Amino acid sequence: MTPDARLDEVLKRLDDQLPDALERLKALLRIPSISTDPAHAGDCRRAAEWLVADLASIGFEARLVETPGHPMVVAHGPRGAGRRVLFYGHYDVQPVDPLSLWDRPPFEPEVEETPRGRVIRGRGASDDKGQLMTFVEAFRAWREVHGALPEGVSILLEGEEESGSPSLDAFLAAHREELSLDLAAICDTALHSDGRPAITTQLRGLVGEEIVLRAADRDLHSGMFGGLAANPLQVLANALASIKDAEGRVTLPGFYDAVPEIPDALRADWDALGFDAGEFLGAVGLNHPVGERGRTGLEMMWARPTFEINGLSGGYTGEGFKTVLPAEARAKVSFRLTGQQAPDAIRAAFRARIREHLPADCTVEFHPHGGSPAGHMDTSDPAFALARGALTEEWGREAAFVGSGGSIPIAGAFQEVLGMDSLLIGFARDDDRIHSPNEKYDLESFHKGARSWARVIAALRG
Amino acid sequence: MTPDARLDEVLKRLDDQLPDALERLKALLRIPSISTDPAHAGDCRRAAEWLVADLASIGFEARLVETPGHPMVVAHGPRGAGRRVLFYGHYDVQPVDPLSLWDRPPFEPEVEETPRGRVIRGRGASDDKGQLMTFVEAFRAWREVHGALPEGVSILLEGEEESGSPSLDAFLAAHREELSLDLAAICDTALHSDGRPAITTQLRGLVGEEIVLRAADRDLHSGMFGGLAANPLQVLANALASIKDAEGRVTLPGFYDAVPEIPDALRADWDALGFDAGEFLGAVGLNHPVGERGRTGLEMMWARPTFEINGLSGGYTGEGFKTVLPAEARAKVSFRLTGQQAPDAIRAAFRARIREHLPADCTVEFHPHGGSPAGHMDTSDPAFALARGALTEEWGREAAFVGSGGSIPIAGAFQEVLGMDSLLIGFARDDDRIHSPNEKYDLESFHKGARSWARVIAALRG
Repeated sequence: MTPDARLDEVLKRLDDQLPDALERLKALLRIPSISTDPAHAGDCRRAAEWLVADLASIGFEARLVETPGHPMVVAHGPRGAGRRVLFYGHYDVQPVDPLSLWDRPPFEPEVEETPRGRVIRGRGASDDKGQLMTFVEAFRAWREVHGALPEGVSILLEGEEESGSPSLDAFLAAHREELSLDLAAICDTALHSDGRPAITTQLRGLVGEEIVLRAADRDLHSGMFGGLAANPLQVLANALASIKDAEGRVTLPGFYDAVPEIPDALRADWDALGFDAGEFLGAVGLNHPVGERGRTGLEMMWARPTFEINGLSGGYTGEGFKTVLPAEARAKVSFRLTGQQAPDAIRAAFRARIREHLPADCTVEFHPHGGSPAGHMDTSDPAFALARGALTEEWGREAAFVGSGGSIPIAGAFQEVLGMDSLLIGFARDDDRIHSPNEKYDLESFHKGARSWARVIAALRG
Repeated sequence: MTPDARLDEVLKRLDDQLPDALERLKALLRIPSISTDPAHAGDCRRAAEWLVADLASIGFEARLVETPGHPMVVAHGPRGAGRRVLFYGHYDVQPVDPLSLWDRPPFEPEVEETPRGRVIRGRGASDDKGQLMTFVEAFRAWREVHGALPEGVSILLEGEEESGSPSLDAFLAAHREELSLDLAAICDTALHSDGRPAITTQLRGLVGEEIVLRAADRDLHSGMFGGLAANPLQVLANALASIKDAEGRVTLPGFYDAVPEIPDALRADWDALGFDAGEFLGAVGLNHPVGERGRTGLEMMWARPTFEINGLSGGYTGEGFKTVLPAEARAKVSFRLTGQQAPDAIRAAFRARIREHLPADCTVEFHPHGGSPAGHMDTSDPAFALARGALTEEWGREAAFVGSGGSIPIAGAFQEVLGMDSLLIGFARDDDRIHSPNEKYDLESFHKGARSWARVIAALRG
């Protein structure tokens, strides 16, 4: 059989075995592996163990590796002589609140018919369990047809991606030799917004931070103390309102120093994607891009840094009303970074700004939640053109090189710690509601995703 | 027996029966009558019924009067020919969260020994069940000594004071004839901060407001949408930060137009109280008065309006981190009013300011939570001097005419709807932790409070 005929055989097997593949995905989705919530630590381990067993069953040397947090899954196929690729995904998922907005229990996944095709719905269906199972299913079919796994393939599955990857850097450093291969393949990104296949070649970085402001040693009655005692909620509002100006620009000193304008060629590529910010926002009930004036929508999302408040709490928030001056106020905030912005410097500038707003009676505590620089891939590596060709063939549309507004810290860590670039290929869609209630993954994404990986593996093997 | 001898007899009876009085107060405190929480509606009714039964047992014609919210307790003693006084208190209490900060269950009251004397601890001990029971116990002892209740006494006990008194105005209007007496006596205020007895002759008003801001029709991932989509938390922070300037002054147009400077005589009285703002704040772990520059501490609390944020919520507030752009953000805020500030005008100016900050994609909902103007009593009525004398006698210290930073909307309602001023006399202390965990009421306040009312009643009867 020629390599082409064998590939056809692998693709046919993926077609025939889709129902079985869906049952496997549902089994994984039923495990509520919410990494940020300590109450779900056991579930994270269970998900990792499930994956070790599944990878072992298709011929990988698979094992669970302990970390101070949730365990890593590491697996190796036969080594061979050619290019070696480390496939990456993460088995942890986001919290599910507000639970009341889910149409079905988030950890009881089912296939649903929708006007836009069949989907599998549940937390992690798209981010990232459905995505990581696309390459696992491609390996499974490959092995069944070839009698062996493709040579040079290794796998790393993380359990802390949704909670800032606290154990990642130390883990990679400790396993540098084992994991420094020729290239990584990361399946945690989306198709372009019009459904075109895409390879993400640049990513924004992330700085996450939690702030706790405290004033009086107890909650106070605003009738008695209002106007005299410091109110942490007001201090918090003032401080957070100062981070951006009326033009949508971040006002921290030096914030834009390491943010380059994008090259003209890349700007032309992005303009050619025909992205319509109004249409993109329209899908979530919005119409008007905010953010820095004079920037295109894709530029704002992919190439410009931003500051966002992700959570605020303090005082009385229940039914009715309570005229309290609370002792404490909390915020969770994050920056998305681009260019060469240094996470530590941005974090320090932010903390300094908050401190400037503190009245004498307020104290502040900062809790860091992850920090990673932006990532840029070297697309002159032939693997990028080969993968682009394979994707174009599977989807019948020219694959695009795109940016991502999200942060995939693993890509930066692979560059920094392991010295390798990443092929960022994923099949999520903008309407997958990742991190939101009613998350889903299209069956087309799951099925053509697995077929895409079979083609990419075949192309990289030449 | 002379009137003086009879009064001594009443006071002695209050001394002797203190243990029984405490058991009655504890029974009332065990009823969790949290008016702002619909889940406790039945408990509010239970508290009202308990009070009707107790008042009937000491000779009042007592009844429960339905309202659209929680019921009112109305009771009348024998009419007589002299001055008629309507005694007011409220049987509802504040919510108890955060429950974890209570040293004992909030609705299982007990007497505790503390370094500063014996206290009864539990939600409502001070605000306002302990206080309202001071006049009930005075009437009980009076009747036992005199064989009859004092003439001209009526009682009104409200069940919605802690939730903005939504039913009050309509209730008073419907019972105008029955309740328009010569004077009110309200027991819901504190001793002066140095423990001196006090009659509150001016009160700040209140405007409470809840804001709900909405943008996208779902929570968004900040990696995908950050920098492009409107963030309701940021809009909320910006809008709330704009309400006050760096000098602590409210920036709403015309806000101070109806706020007079206090008369020189009153300023001299207040200065003579020797109030030390630093010491006052020190009791709650603070040191530095904030608020408008160039104002004394008492002025800020009693005679200057203020704006306070009472609650903020939105986005991810659980353990760990979630890079969400939330669909919704909420705030509860309040203004304290002074002078002739009109609640409706202040509310309208606030709403206009919030709307100015809304980007095109944001909507806002406003929910009013009570509005009442500031109150000023006519202290030339001889009742004020008589009551002052009675308090001075009981406490052995000159009673003071003071202001209050809190809002007791009932005093304004009595003026507006029933056309009568109020004697605002209460025995709470600054460290009672009202509205906070571990609320308490000093046994001295409870006992001497009841004795004070016996003396006031005797003085007013001449």
